[in-house]
Amino acid sequence: MPIVQIELLPRPVEDKRILAKEITDLLVRQIKCPPEAVRIIFREMKEEDYAAAGVLRCDKNKPIPNNQDNIRVGR
Amino acid sequence: MPIVQIELLPRPVEDKRILAKEITDLLVRQIKCPPEAVRIIFREMKEEDYAAAGVLRCDKNKPIPNNQDNIRVGR
Amino acid sequence: MPIVQIELLPRPVEDKRILAKEITDLLVRQIKCPPEAVRIIFREMKEEDYAAAGVLRCDKNKPIPNNQDNIRVGR
Amino acid sequence: MPIVQIELLPRPVEDKRILAKEITDLLVRQIKCPPEAVRIIFREMKEEDYAAAGVLRCDKNKPIPNNQDNIRVGR
Amino acid sequence: MPIVQIELLPRPVEDKRILAKEITDLLVRQIKCPPEAVRIIFREMKEEDYAAAGVLRCDKNKPIPNNQDNIRVGR
Amino acid sequence: MPIVQIELLPRPVEDKRILAKEITDLLVRQIKCPPEAVRIIFREMKEEDYAAAGVLRCDKNKPIPNNQDNIRVGR
Repeated sequence: MPIVQIELLPRPVEDKRILAKEITDLLVRQIKCPPEAVRIIFREMKEEDYAAAGVLRCDKNKPIPNNQDNIRVGR
Repeated sequence: MPIVQIELLPRPVEDKRILAKEITDLLVRQIKCPPEAVRIIFREMKEEDYAAAGVLRCDKNKPIPNNQDNIRVGR
Repeated sequence: MPIVQIELLPRPVEDKRILAKEITDLLVRQIKCPPEAVRIIFREMKEEDYAAAGVLRCDKNKPIPNNQDNIRVGR
Repeated sequence: MPIVQIELLPRPVEDKRILAKEITDLLVRQIKCPPEAVRIIFREMKEEDYAAAGVLRCDKNKPIPNNQDNIRVGR
Repeated sequence: MPIVQIELLPRPVEDKRILAKEITDLLVRQIKCPPEAVRIIFREMKEEDYAAAGVLRCDKNKPIPNNQDNIRVGR
Repeated sequence: MPIVQIELLPRPVEDKRILAKEITDLLVRQIKCPPEAVRIIFREMKEEDYAAAGVLRCDKNKPIPNNQDNIRVGR
């Protein structure tokens, strides 16, 4: 009965196919559940929908001066 | 205050309209909460974003030989 | 290590930029965690994917007669 | 394949038993999925872990003067 | 940046330790993200908080007659 | 209608009270929604239920030799 939800930036279907297979195998081996009990959901995020340390992913590699301007906006 | 999150494959708006209404009614009747307290979120999944038993939904009805090829890839 | 998931109707990137920055600042100040420990995920919902009080958001401002027709459908 | 997550204040097991049964029936009827495809997770929240309109549920019925004191703290 | 949420029945810490390590390794290898970018949350469910096919896990192995009695209750 | 879910290590109720109030204020100001539309859920995690970089939080400050022993187990 493990239910796995994975948020990630967009990835090709091949990656999801392999991850689904291998994460399921891992859970079956470690938890001793039947494979059919494992459900996996991938949720792809746009780069503007994820932030670490207060900075959106889509802003992460922008030159710092622009970035500061953007953040100053709205205050 | 129940908050309900439903992951499902894409469905027409009519289905969501009926599910939202009936699940809310159910919760109001069973939990005795006011209807306005019930929030429901639908999240539609692409067939490549959901797996059961380690197999992506989009691969589920593929002929087995192709499928095995796909899974063998990436190791 | 706080992980924040926010479901909301679609908003411009500027709103998410400011919310990501300010919610992170709030958590750092109140919980005394390092900024890099805070992760924020925005999930935008379509108006047909959210219901309060049993009514989909996309139906909320429709004239009542239509709305009743819609809800009667499907029984 | 619908996966349903329900956050709610603590409820007796009888309520969950009925909700699990009836929500599953609803989904099967409306979405035409097999019953075994429906998974439901209940997550019970403590009253201090849920807020509406910025007020924790555990503070909701407190007399207003105390409540304001509490909220003023921490600024 | 993958964020993984895993709902499962209670398991000893050793299982979670191994799953956390191996799922992280899998994601790093397949998605080419740095290990520090992977966050994993385990949420343990009580047997009364999980249902498949409309039946709570805690009712799953009960003799059928009792089970039917329980379900009939509350209508 | 924003719904906010926050996973965090256990914190005193005072912290949640302030966070609920201030995150709601932020969302109201930035998104122009009514305060009653904002719902916030806190989910406290045990230290054995959260991992970053493949290491459970409860193992994070353990001396490295023990830690390696633990991880080697189970293969």
